Amino acid sequence: MNSATAVAPKVCQDVTRALVERALAIDYTRLPEDVRTLARQCLLDWFAVTLAGIGDPLVELLLDAAREEGGTAAATVVGRGVQLTRAQAALVNGTASHVLDYDDVNLNINGHPSAVLVPAVLAMAEATDAPGSELLSAFVAGYEAACRAGRLAAPGHYLRGYHATSTVGGLGAAVACARLLRLDAERTAMALGIAATEAAGLKAMFGTQCKPFHAGMAAEHGIRAALLAQRGMQSRTDALECRQGFAQVLSPDLDPQAALGDPEAYFIRDNLFKYHAACYGTHSAIECARTLRAEHRFAPDEIESVTVRVERGADAVCNIASPRTGLEAKFSLRLTTAMALCGRDTADLAVYSESTAADPVLVGVRDRIRMELIEGWPLMQTEVALGLRGGRRLVTACDTGIPSADYARQGTRLQEKFVRLTRPVLGAERSARLLERLNAIECTRVRELMRVAGEAVQ
Amino acid sequence: MNSATAVAPKVCQDVTRALVERALAIDYTRLPEDVRTLARQCLLDWFAVTLAGIGDPLVELLLDAAREEGGTAAATVVGRGVQLTRAQAALVNGTASHVLDYDDVNLNINGHPSAVLVPAVLAMAEATDAPGSELLSAFVAGYEAACRAGRLAAPGHYLRGYHATSTVGGLGAAVACARLLRLDAERTAMALGIAATEAAGLKAMFGTQCKPFHAGMAAEHGIRAALLAQRGMQSRTDALECRQGFAQVLSPDLDPQAALGDPEAYFIRDNLFKYHAACYGTHSAIECARTLRAEHRFAPDEIESVTVRVERGADAVCNIASPRTGLEAKFSLRLTTAMALCGRDTADLAVYSESTAADPVLVGVRDRIRMELIEGWPLMQTEVALGLRGGRRLVTACDTGIPSADYARQGTRLQEKFVRLTRPVLGAERSARLLERLNAIECTRVRELMRVAGEAVQ
Repeated sequence: MNSATAVAPKVCQDVTRALVERALAIDYTRLPEDVRTLARQCLLDWFAVTLAGIGDPLVELLLDAAREEGGTAAATVVGRGVQLTRAQAALVNGTASHVLDYDDVNLNINGHPSAVLVPAVLAMAEATDAPGSELLSAFVAGYEAACRAGRLAAPGHYLRGYHATSTVGGLGAAVACARLLRLDAERTAMALGIAATEAAGLKAMFGTQCKPFHAGMAAEHGIRAALLAQRGMQSRTDALECRQGFAQVLSPDLDPQAALGDPEAYFIRDNLFKYHAACYGTHSAIECARTLRAEHRFAPDEIESVTVRVERGADAVCNIASPRTGLEAKFSLRLTTAMALCGRDTADLAVYSESTAADPVLVGVRDRIRMELIEGWPLMQTEVALGLRGGRRLVTACDTGIPSADYARQGTRLQEKFVRLTRPVLGAERSARLLERLNAIECTRVRELMRVAGEAVQ
Repeated sequence: MNSATAVAPKVCQDVTRALVERALAIDYTRLPEDVRTLARQCLLDWFAVTLAGIGDPLVELLLDAAREEGGTAAATVVGRGVQLTRAQAALVNGTASHVLDYDDVNLNINGHPSAVLVPAVLAMAEATDAPGSELLSAFVAGYEAACRAGRLAAPGHYLRGYHATSTVGGLGAAVACARLLRLDAERTAMALGIAATEAAGLKAMFGTQCKPFHAGMAAEHGIRAALLAQRGMQSRTDALECRQGFAQVLSPDLDPQAALGDPEAYFIRDNLFKYHAACYGTHSAIECARTLRAEHRFAPDEIESVTVRVERGADAVCNIASPRTGLEAKFSLRLTTAMALCGRDTADLAVYSESTAADPVLVGVRDRIRMELIEGWPLMQTEVALGLRGGRRLVTACDTGIPSADYARQGTRLQEKFVRLTRPVLGAERSARLLERLNAIECTRVRELMRVAGEAVQ
């Protein structure tokens, strides 16, 4: 990674502009087929996790605050039968989409792209009743800008303690909203400048309600930045790379090559979806355990020993040895692996509970699991080795940091996730109706989509 | 300055709590007489500079945006005959108060305290029609918290590129608003946590409209943080000092001793007011020139040579040798010194113009001024040495970084500034009426104050 001072000024000068020009050139209808598929999958997954989180007390709290504040109703809160201002709706929807931490991830951002981008573009697109294809153009434009901005300041930005979902996400949301407003390159760069000077969010807030709030806040920042730039508010057009700009101030790293190299890349291809309602760091181990169980059918009491090998960094993230609460269970490699080995449904939100954490069968398997921390493996790489009664030895490996190349299977899994998360909230009929709209998003206008998604939940 | 890792954890753990407890204990009526005087002077000065800036195009732009957004009218925009939501009013008033860069300064923050704190407390106090003494209690509580938080992260926070007016100001505004809402220590600490995770603002934006916008944004952040904490939103109660908290992430420095030492100190005693409408770095030189001119009466053509000695750091801030525009004139030690030597009115907003910058008499004196940059002087210390025709040598020194101890004279100068800035906007009668209210702020309710201050300007 280049240090700030080592970067040639000429290259530096062009980062914001280059990001903007590339983003504004994105037109959904002309994107590669797989990129369009991924954009629709992100949208589908966003509605699933947001509707599942929409009843959270924090969402209630923010709705009450918005009601007290008042404002011109212009955008819908999903599943609540409520319209708020664009910024308020984006704040509430964005927070709801991250409250379960079940939303998608992109390691170029070191964070969660859709939780910030989708609520921002939905609110803006609903206000103008844009067609679904415009919504998706803006989403991909913001997504790619966020990934490139994230790469510009990586890895130091996240390591220093910024919640990149919030900071980098807000930059992407500004570009996405500018794209919907059809701002020119100059004004879009100014919107990015405003978003850069709004960028905030501390990783120290993980474990508090501020973490999901960050996603909503960043969506709101993007909307404000684009609207103020549209009105002509002046900012800088080189805020990402300039002296004392976003990258220099919020990171020890400033790497224009990482941001701008590979101009044909679509970073949405690195999007990772979550199929288990636990910390992403446990997903590889869960997948290994599921594979072994599906292929070799064994009962819990046949399991004599388990070794789970993970990258050393996981130790500080999700290695609670003996979890007691549902929340702790989500951050326990040992317990989640035991759950998957015993056939428990790790996609079920309700399974992460005190009673699961105390379940004697699970605790029995959990206590036979030995963790091995490996230096320098890829972040998510995991190996699970099983010793079964009678001497059978099984081993398999998985790396959920590598995005799936099988988009059809991914689509099927996401539809299953959608149905599973939205049915308890919407009921079967409305869940199916919304799924239908989302599957036809390319020829659906955003107001129609939000009319279906907005109805109050049961 | 201690590095983050060198700080004993015990001391660290208490910074946020200690700040909060001290702030909540502040009661205007029990404050030392001079502190109360200073608080009223800050308020007076804030109204002067804000009314002078209220017609700025950026204020217009933000008002239009707020009107489009709508909301429950609860707080007044000064001089505009408009009520907005609390957050919107604070955004607009805060931006207006910093748009001329004529507002007060405190070097403990490395920024402008009143531009953020006053609009926040006014909006909150108006909504509940608090008495003036409550307004001032909250203002001083927020002021002291901001200074201590600023000292915690100084000097690296500002040097790294943060506009501390915005970041640290928002922390102070959160405490001030929490004080008005009568939140307990726990919730006030959570409000500080929310403000810490909202904290943003890049120094790279100096010279753009984002700079004054930061003041309004920070006021808004403080209001939001306090209101969400009041509703029970969870945050951390140690966000300033915790691992990957405000100080660690936004600064290389974390100095609990600087923040908490001297528990009896009131940092408002370091408040610096601006009497010249130019960059603060030029004020010592202007004062020197005014003193010499007042004591020795000389004509411009008698001035043969001038040496202005300033601290080296001023070179990067306000040493434009041959300014051409009004804005450049404000950042030119040579021209502003020449203006003061020739008796031009440096307090006049309109004097900083292209024609002043091109005035042959001023340019003649300006070109006889030699700058000398001295290593390691106090930041604002300046010496002006004059060579007059006939061989007379005059020399004087000044340091506007040292707050005035003569509060009565300061009060007189601020009243003059108030009259001078508000008369052209309000007319003589309304200016006098508002001054009367401000002089009686201790027994005036905030709604009554804002009724007088809010009427639309001519």
